[in-house]
Amino acid sequence: MNNTYINALLKKVAEHKISIEKAALEIKAAPFEELGFAKIDTHRKIRNGVPEVIYGAGKSAEQILQICETMKNNGQEQILITRLSEEKAKEISSSFKLDYNNIGNIGLIGEPSNPDGIGKIVIATGGTSDMYAAEEAAFTAKALGNEIVCLYDVGVAGLHRLLAHIDELMSASVVIAVAGMEGALASVVAGLVDCPVIAVPTSVGYGASFGGLSALLSMLNSCASGVSVVNIDNGFGAAYQANMINHIGERK
Amino acid sequence: MNNTYINALLKKVAEHKISIEKAALEIKAAPFEELGFAKIDTHRKIRNGVPEVIYGAGKSAEQILQICETMKNNGQEQILITRLSEEKAKEISSSFKLDYNNIGNIGLIGEPSNPDGIGKIVIATGGTSDMYAAEEAAFTAKALGNEIVCLYDVGVAGLHRLLAHIDELMSASVVIAVAGMEGALASVVAGLVDCPVIAVPTSVGYGASFGGLSALLSMLNSCASGVSVVNIDNGFGAAYQANMINHIGERK
Amino acid sequence: MNNTYINALLKKVAEHKISIEKAALEIKAAPFEELGFAKIDTHRKIRNGVPEVIYGAGKSAEQILQICETMKNNGQEQILITRLSEEKAKEISSSFKLDYNNIGNIGLIGEPSNPDGIGKIVIATGGTSDMYAAEEAAFTAKALGNEIVCLYDVGVAGLHRLLAHIDELMSASVVIAVAGMEGALASVVAGLVDCPVIAVPTSVGYGASFGGLSALLSMLNSCASGVSVVNIDNGFGAAYQANMINHIGERK
Amino acid sequence: MNNTYINALLKKVAEHKISIEKAALEIKAAPFEELGFAKIDTHRKIRNGVPEVIYGAGKSAEQILQICETMKNNGQEQILITRLSEEKAKEISSSFKLDYNNIGNIGLIGEPSNPDGIGKIVIATGGTSDMYAAEEAAFTAKALGNEIVCLYDVGVAGLHRLLAHIDELMSASVVIAVAGMEGALASVVAGLVDCPVIAVPTSVGYGASFGGLSALLSMLNSCASGVSVVNIDNGFGAAYQANMINHIGERK
Amino acid sequence: MNNTYINALLKKVAEHKISIEKAALEIKAAPFEELGFAKIDTHRKIRNGVPEVIYGAGKSAEQILQICETMKNNGQEQILITRLSEEKAKEISSSFKLDYNNIGNIGLIGEPSNPDGIGKIVIATGGTSDMYAAEEAAFTAKALGNEIVCLYDVGVAGLHRLLAHIDELMSASVVIAVAGMEGALASVVAGLVDCPVIAVPTSVGYGASFGGLSALLSMLNSCASGVSVVNIDNGFGAAYQANMINHIGERK
Amino acid sequence: MNNTYINALLKKVAEHKISIEKAALEIKAAPFEELGFAKIDTHRKIRNGVPEVIYGAGKSAEQILQICETMKNNGQEQILITRLSEEKAKEISSSFKLDYNNIGNIGLIGEPSNPDGIGKIVIATGGTSDMYAAEEAAFTAKALGNEIVCLYDVGVAGLHRLLAHIDELMSASVVIAVAGMEGALASVVAGLVDCPVIAVPTSVGYGASFGGLSALLSMLNSCASGVSVVNIDNGFGAAYQANMINHIGERK
Amino acid sequence: MNNTYINALLKKVAEHKISIEKAALEIKAAPFEELGFAKIDTHRKIRNGVPEVIYGAGKSAEQILQICETMKNNGQEQILITRLSEEKAKEISSSFKLDYNNIGNIGLIGEPSNPDGIGKIVIATGGTSDMYAAEEAAFTAKALGNEIVCLYDVGVAGLHRLLAHIDELMSASVVIAVAGMEGALASVVAGLVDCPVIAVPTSVGYGASFGGLSALLSMLNSCASGVSVVNIDNGFGAAYQANMINHIGERK
Amino acid sequence: MNNTYINALLKKVAEHKISIEKAALEIKAAPFEELGFAKIDTHRKIRNGVPEVIYGAGKSAEQILQICETMKNNGQEQILITRLSEEKAKEISSSFKLDYNNIGNIGLIGEPSNPDGIGKIVIATGGTSDMYAAEEAAFTAKALGNEIVCLYDVGVAGLHRLLAHIDELMSASVVIAVAGMEGALASVVAGLVDCPVIAVPTSVGYGASFGGLSALLSMLNSCASGVSVVNIDNGFGAAYQANMINHIGERK
Repeated sequence: MNNTYINALLKKVAEHKISIEKAALEIKAAPFEELGFAKIDTHRKIRNGVPEVIYGAGKSAEQILQICETMKNNGQEQILITRLSEEKAKEISSSFKLDYNNIGNIGLIGEPSNPDGIGKIVIATGGTSDMYAAEEAAFTAKALGNEIVCLYDVGVAGLHRLLAHIDELMSASVVIAVAGMEGALASVVAGLVDCPVIAVPTSVGYGASFGGLSALLSMLNSCASGVSVVNIDNGFGAAYQANMINHIGERK
Repeated sequence: MNNTYINALLKKVAEHKISIEKAALEIKAAPFEELGFAKIDTHRKIRNGVPEVIYGAGKSAEQILQICETMKNNGQEQILITRLSEEKAKEISSSFKLDYNNIGNIGLIGEPSNPDGIGKIVIATGGTSDMYAAEEAAFTAKALGNEIVCLYDVGVAGLHRLLAHIDELMSASVVIAVAGMEGALASVVAGLVDCPVIAVPTSVGYGASFGGLSALLSMLNSCASGVSVVNIDNGFGAAYQANMINHIGERK
Repeated sequence: MNNTYINALLKKVAEHKISIEKAALEIKAAPFEELGFAKIDTHRKIRNGVPEVIYGAGKSAEQILQICETMKNNGQEQILITRLSEEKAKEISSSFKLDYNNIGNIGLIGEPSNPDGIGKIVIATGGTSDMYAAEEAAFTAKALGNEIVCLYDVGVAGLHRLLAHIDELMSASVVIAVAGMEGALASVVAGLVDCPVIAVPTSVGYGASFGGLSALLSMLNSCASGVSVVNIDNGFGAAYQANMINHIGERK
Repeated sequence: MNNTYINALLKKVAEHKISIEKAALEIKAAPFEELGFAKIDTHRKIRNGVPEVIYGAGKSAEQILQICETMKNNGQEQILITRLSEEKAKEISSSFKLDYNNIGNIGLIGEPSNPDGIGKIVIATGGTSDMYAAEEAAFTAKALGNEIVCLYDVGVAGLHRLLAHIDELMSASVVIAVAGMEGALASVVAGLVDCPVIAVPTSVGYGASFGGLSALLSMLNSCASGVSVVNIDNGFGAAYQANMINHIGERK
Repeated sequence: MNNTYINALLKKVAEHKISIEKAALEIKAAPFEELGFAKIDTHRKIRNGVPEVIYGAGKSAEQILQICETMKNNGQEQILITRLSEEKAKEISSSFKLDYNNIGNIGLIGEPSNPDGIGKIVIATGGTSDMYAAEEAAFTAKALGNEIVCLYDVGVAGLHRLLAHIDELMSASVVIAVAGMEGALASVVAGLVDCPVIAVPTSVGYGASFGGLSALLSMLNSCASGVSVVNIDNGFGAAYQANMINHIGERK
Repeated sequence: MNNTYINALLKKVAEHKISIEKAALEIKAAPFEELGFAKIDTHRKIRNGVPEVIYGAGKSAEQILQICETMKNNGQEQILITRLSEEKAKEISSSFKLDYNNIGNIGLIGEPSNPDGIGKIVIATGGTSDMYAAEEAAFTAKALGNEIVCLYDVGVAGLHRLLAHIDELMSASVVIAVAGMEGALASVVAGLVDCPVIAVPTSVGYGASFGGLSALLSMLNSCASGVSVVNIDNGFGAAYQANMINHIGERK
Repeated sequence: MNNTYINALLKKVAEHKISIEKAALEIKAAPFEELGFAKIDTHRKIRNGVPEVIYGAGKSAEQILQICETMKNNGQEQILITRLSEEKAKEISSSFKLDYNNIGNIGLIGEPSNPDGIGKIVIATGGTSDMYAAEEAAFTAKALGNEIVCLYDVGVAGLHRLLAHIDELMSASVVIAVAGMEGALASVVAGLVDCPVIAVPTSVGYGASFGGLSALLSMLNSCASGVSVVNIDNGFGAAYQANMINHIGERK
Repeated sequence: MNNTYINALLKKVAEHKISIEKAALEIKAAPFEELGFAKIDTHRKIRNGVPEVIYGAGKSAEQILQICETMKNNGQEQILITRLSEEKAKEISSSFKLDYNNIGNIGLIGEPSNPDGIGKIVIATGGTSDMYAAEEAAFTAKALGNEIVCLYDVGVAGLHRLLAHIDELMSASVVIAVAGMEGALASVVAGLVDCPVIAVPTSVGYGASFGGLSALLSMLNSCASGVSVVNIDNGFGAAYQANMINHIGERK
C-alpha cells in the first residue's frame, strides 16, 4: 500500500468526503477475493508486475475452474496454470479456451503478451529428458511476453553441440540452463556468456542423483560467476524471473 | 570465439597476409596468461562483461600479488579480491593501493566503476549477524558500478521494520535478500516487489540450521515467484548477477 | 501412580481390608486392557487429560473396530481416529456413528467436547494444498473442546492476505501455523502475535522441499520467538498440544 | 497496527487536529529505533508480550552495549541477553548491573519479573551434560516471571530417577524436556503428564548423534502426544514459549 | 579351513594315499554348490552354526524352489526363507510343506529346532504397527530353537504397559526391542534389564521419521548401555544374533 | 577439433580451394545431426573411441526408433540402447534386429565387436539380486568387444565362494565388482588382484541401505587401493570404462 | 522394583512393623544419591549386572571426583571412567589409584574383575588408526571380567592377515569388529565365525567417510548374519554388551 | 595363494622333503610381518603389483619410522608415505633419504620407478586451490613409474584454457580430473577424450559444497561415459589406479 494512495485517502477524510469508518475499512481492505479454500490476489499485477498464477498441483479441476472464473470476473485477461495434468486440462478446456503444453504440463487462458522484452531468453537443456522443465519455462516466458530460443540436448558430454550455438547464447539477455545428472551445463554456459544465467536443476538421473540433489548442488557451487538457481524442476520460476530481468527497463 | 573474428582471420589467410601456421596457432591461442599455478583469463571482460575476479581463499598473499601484477601488466584496471583475510590484505596493501572492507573480507585495487545501472540494488539482511555476506555483496555491487541501498536487520520477526522501507524496496531494480536461520526474508520481500530477488542464504544460526542448509532450502522453496538463489554466504555471486541485471540494457 | 492412591491402598493393607497378594497385584496392575495385538490405555484421560486416540495408519478396519469396542465397553465416550482412510471409515461407520472428515482423514465416534477453552485456536495455512493437515488439526481441536478459526491460503507471498486477519490472530490463545514449501508462515505469524505458535510443516512442495524437510528446518530455525514445531503433516499433534494450552487453567 | 489506533488517527485527521502528511507518516512510522547495524524493536512488549531480547552470538560487546543503552533510553527495564560469552559479560558488567549465568551463557539487566504464572515450569534433563541448555531455559523462564523446578540427570537409562519426581512433573503447567543422545526423555515424560511438553534436543553426544540430529528427530517423532520441539540447544526458545503458556490466562 | 583338516590331508599326501593334484583341488574345493545364479553355501551350519537362510526378496519363486531343492539334496533339513511374499509362499507350498507367517513374511520348510537355549528371548514392540518386524524375529528365533515371549504394544507413551511385564523382561536372556517413530523403547528397556538388548528400528512412522532413520539414530545413541542395533526392519537379523547369544554356552 | 584438421582446412583457404564463408562454416559446423528433440553425436566414435549410446530411460519408443534410424543412415553399425524396458524393446524389434537382455534391460542393434582386448573383464556380484546391474555391464562389455567372465553370488559372507575363483580374478585385466548392501566385495577383491577394480554399488538392500548409498560410500572409502566407483546401478558405465582400459594399448 | 520386595514390604505394613507413610516413601524411594548436578544410580549393579560407569566427556575433573567419592562411599568397588582426557586423569590420580589407558582414554579405579566369562572376547581392528576405539573396548572388557585377544590391523585389504588368525576368531565367544573407512571387516568376520559379532564403526577416514557414517551404514547393511552395531567410536558400548553375552549363563 | 605354490609345496610333502607340520604352517604362514600395532604386508608387490604404501595420517613419526625400517629389512626398495605432515617428514628425513612434496603432503624413500607405462597420465585441475590433491596424484604416479603432464587451473568457467590443451588431453592414456565446487571438469574432459577419466572430487569450496559432496555427486552423475570416481581428496587412489591402467599390458 503506497504512500500516494494513503495521502489521497486521508485527503478525502480531511474533506469529509468519506467517513472515518469507511476509510479505516479501506486501509485494511484486502485486495484479494475470498473463495473459502483460496484467496485470490487480484492486485498482484500492480504489486509484482505479473498477475497471479495458479499452481495446479494439489488442486482439483473444479477448484481451478472456480479460481479461473473469479479471476476472469476481476478482469484478469491472462491466466497461467502450472503443474496441470492432461486430465484436468481437458476439464478446464470445456469451460475456457485453454492453450495447453503436454510436455511442460502448463496451460494458458488468454493470449500470450507481446514479446517486448529487452532481448531474447535462451532456454538450453543438457539432454532430451530435461525437456519437461524446459518446456514449462519456454511456455511461461512466451506467455509473459518474451521472445524465446530453445536449444535442447546441448549437454557438456559433446561440447561442440553447445559451441555450435555460441552466437545464440551470446545474444541472449538471459539464459535458462536446464540440466539433471551432474548439472554442469550451467557452469559451462555461464563461462561463455555475459548475461545472467538462471539454472534449473532437474530430477533427471538415477542412483546418486538423489532426485535432482546432485544437479542442484552443482549449480549452487558453480565456479563460473553469474549463475543463480531455482528449485529442482522449477522451469516456471526460472522463466518468471527471466521475464522480470528481460523487462527490467520498463518499470523504473 | 565469434564468427566475425574467424572470418577476418580467414580473409587474411586467403590474402596470404598471415601464414597458415600462424593462423592455426591464433585460432587455438588461449586468451590467458600462464603463471604455472594459475591461468589468468585476460579476455574475460570481453566475454563476460566483467574482468576476472580473484578468489582469495586458499591462495597465499604472494600468489595473489603475482596474479595482480600480471593483471595490471595486461591492462586490467580494476581488480576485485574476495575472501581476503585481513592479514593478506595488509601484505597486498604494501604493493598496491587496496580499498579493503573488513566485514565482507573483500578488497578492490583500482576505482569502483561509475554507478550507471538501470536502477538501484537494494541489499537487505534478516539480522545484524548476516552483515558479512551483505557487505561482500554491497562492496562488489559498488565496485562493478551500481548505486546501492543497504537495509540491515529487517527480518520477518518484526515485519514493520521491513514495511517501513517499502518505498526503497519498490524502487529497486534488483533486491539481494541476505538471511540465515529460516531465511524467510526472501519470500516476504519477493511478495512485495516487482523486480528480481536474488537470495543469499547465510550460515548464521545454530543447531538445525546445519550451516545454512535451512535457509538455503527455504529460499529454493520460496512460495513467492521471482526468487533465485546463490550458494550459502555467496554475497559476491549475488552482487555479480545483480550487476549483470542492472546493466542489461547496455550490451544488447 | 500417585502418592494418594498408594497411601489409600496401604491403609487398607494395614487395616487388613485387602490381602497382601491382592495389594501387590494392584500396585502392579496395569490400567490397560489387553487385546493381543494392542494394549488399550484406559486410564489415559486421568493421566494425560485426553482419552487414548487411535492412530489408524497400519491398522486394519477390523483391528480398529475391535479397539473401538473395547474402549466403548470401558466407558470411553469419545473416540478419535486419525490417519483413517475413506474405505476404513466406511467399514467403521457400519458399526459406529462416525463423524468423518475426508480432507483431514480423521473421524470421531461420540460428540465433540464443549468448546470451553481459554480462548480460540486459530489455524492458518500457507496455501490451499496444506488443507489436509489443517483440517486434521481443526477436527482434533474441535473434538477436544475448543473454538476454532480457520484462515486458509494466507501465505507470505501475499502478506496483505495475512494482515487482513490480524485481529483474529491477535485474539487467539494459540495459533497453529501450517505450511509447506519454505514454511515462512510460522515466523511471520510469531512476529505478529503474543501467544504460542505451534508450527506444522507439511510435505507440500517438490524438488528441494524433500518431503517437508525444508519447511521443518525453517520452522525450527524461526527467527521469531514463541514457535515450537511438530512432525511433518502432524496436524493432530499440534491440535493436541494446542488443546492442552487452551485448557491449561483447568487442572491446576 | 490495530483498528482502534487507525480510527483514532483518522478522527484527528477529520477534525484537522493533525495534518494529512503527518498522519500518513504516522501510519507508516516504524515503532523501532535505528542504530545502523540493528533496528531495535521498541514496541515488542506490546505486540508479543515480552520485550525484545538480544541474541548475543555474532555481536561484539560494543554493539551489545549500544543496543542496551538504546533500550534503556526507551524505557525497557528488563534486558535479556542470550548466547553471551563470559568475556563479553564482563565488558557489559562494567556499564550495567548484569546478572550472569555462566553455564547457560545468559545474562539479565534489570530484575526478574514476578513469578505470577498459572503454575510451575519444570525443566528436566537427561544427563548432567545437558545442563547448559537447561540453565538457559531456567534463567529465561525465571526472568520472564515464572516459578521453576529443575530436575537434572533424570534420563531414561534409570527410570526410577525420573519416577521419583512424578509429583513435581504431574503438578507442572509446562515441562521443558532437555536431552541429547537419543532424546527419549521427551516421550517418556509426555506419557506421564497432562500438560504440554516442550522438547529441547541438545548437541550432547558423539558419532551418530550428528550434532543433535538424533535427539531432534526422536523428539519430532515422539509416540506420545503433547510434545512440540524447538531448535537444537534452544533452551531460551523453549522457556519463551513456556512462559507464554504459563501466562496464557492473562491477556485474553 | 582349520589346521586339523589340513594336517590330515597332508598326512594322506605324505603317505601317497591321495595324489598331489587331488589334494590341491581339495584344499581349494569350495564347500558350496553352483546353481548359476546362486552359490549355495552347504557348509554354513558347520562354519556359522546355522544353515544358510534364503533371502527371498528379489528372487523369483522358481529360483527359490531350485535353491530349496539343492539344499534338500544336500541334506539341509531346515530351510528358512525371509522376505517371502504371500504369492511366492503359495507357489513354494505346492512343492514343499511350508510353515508360513503372513505378518512377518517368513516361512520355514522343516521343523523348528528344539527350544534348548539358555533362557527366553523376549520380543517387545513399541506399537501394533511394528508387528511385521517382530513376527519376523519371533518366527526366526523359534525356528532356530528358542523359547520366545512376545510383548507387543508396550511403547513408552504408556510406561505402565511396559512395567507390567517387568518380570518377563528381567528373566530374558536377550531382549529384542522393536520400535519405529522415536525408538525410545530400546533405551528404556535397556535401563531395566541385565541382559543384552538388540534393537530393531522399524520404518513405522511418517514425516521426519525418514523411513526409520529417526528410530535408527535413537537406538544407536541410546543413553543406556547394553544396546546394539541391526538394520531398519531387520527382525531376522536380530533374532539370528539373539539365537547365537542364547546358545553361546553350547559350542565353546 | 584437432590441429591437423585446421591446418588442412586453412591450406585449402590459402589455395582458394574453398571460400572463406564455407571454411568459417566448417570450422563451426557441428558433427552432429539435429532431430529437434535430440542432437545425435555422429563423430563420437572418432572422438571417444565408442559410438554414441542411447540412454533409453525417459525416451519414447518412437524417439528411440527415430534416433536409431538417423544413426543407421549415418553409417553407425552398432547401436547400444541402455535402460530399455521390455515393452519398448518389442516395439524396436519390429523395425530393427535387436539382441535384448531382459535382466540388464539393454539391447544391441548390430553385432558385438570382436573380443580383441588385452585380457578378460571379470564381472563379480555379491548376490543373486545384483544381477541386473551385472548383466548390463556384461552385455555392454561384450558388445564393445571384450571377453567376459561372470562370477555371480560371490559375496563376502562366504569368502570361500570368492576364493574358489581366485585364478579367474588374478588373470583379469579389469574386475567389475557389483554389490549392494554393504558393498564390501570391492574392497576384498581389490586386496586380491593386481588390476583395476571398477566398483558398481547397487540399490539392492533395504532400510539403512538408503537406495544404494551404503554401498556407494563403502566403495568410495575402500581401504584397498585400486578401486574407483561409478554411479549406483551403473553397470553400463563400469563396462564402458573397463572396455577403454582393456583396449588401452590400441590407440596410443 | 520386583515383586518379592513389594510383598515383603506389604507384609511389614500388615504386621504394623512399618508405618504407612514410611512404606509409601520406601516404595517411591529412589535407589540413587543426589549430587545436585548428577544422580548416582547406586542400585545399577543389582538391576543391570554392572555398576554405573562415569561418562567423562563434558564433566569437569571436580565433578568426576565428587561422583567417584559418592560411589566409593556407597561401596562401589570398581569405577570405570570413559572418555577421560589425560589431564583429567592426572587430577583424579591425585585422589584415587587410577589405572589409565591413554590410547582408549579410559580409566579404572579398583581392580579388574576376574576373567570368568564363557570364553574369550576377540577385538579386531581394520587398521592401526582404529586402535583408540579398540583399546576402549579392550580395557572395558578386561575391567568387567573377560579374557581378551586383540587382533589389530587385520583389515580386508590383506585378507591373509585376517585368515592367519582364523583359529583365534573361531574360538571366540564374541568378536568385536572395529573398523573405519568402508567397515567391511564386520561382514568378513561374521562370515567366518559362529559367534555374535558386535561391530564398532570408527570415525577413521576422510572425505566421503563423513565422520564414520560410511562404516556405520556398511555394518548395518552387512550381508552376513550375526552382526549388530553400536554407535560410531563406541568401543565401550560394544565391550559392555560383549561382557553381558560372555557371562550370560551366570544370572539365569 | 596360487595353485602353483600349493602344488610345489605338496610335491615336497609327497617327496618327504618337508615335514607335514612345517607344510601346514607354511600354508597358513602369513606373508606379513608383525609389529604389534601394524602388520606389514610384505608380499603385496607380488599380489597387487605395487608394494605396500604407508597411510601417514593417524600414525606417529615413530610408528612410521619403525614400519619403514621393517620394510627396508624386507627388501622393499621404494616406500611411499601419504598424508605426511611437514613435521613428521622432517623427523623421517633424519633417518631416511626422503623426497617430500609439501603441497601434496607425500614423500618417497627410494627412487621413482622408470616411466615405462603405455602412455602419459594427464592430471588436470579445475582451479589453483585443487593443487594439493593433484600434487598427491602427480607424485604418486611418478613414483610408481609413469610420465605425467600437469594441467592446473583449467576449470570450465574458462573453457578456452582447457581447449588450449586438447592435444595433451587427446594423447593421454589416462586423465585424472581433479576439481572441487561443482566438479564439472570431469564431465567436460570425458566428453573430449577417448581414454579413461578418473575423477577426484576435492573439498575445495564453501557453503553448499558440503566438504566435497557437491563435486562427488557431480562426478558420479557425469553425463559423459568413461568416468569413474575415487574418494574426496584421494589423489593417491586415482594415481594408483591410473598407474595400473597405464601398465596394464605388462602383467597379462
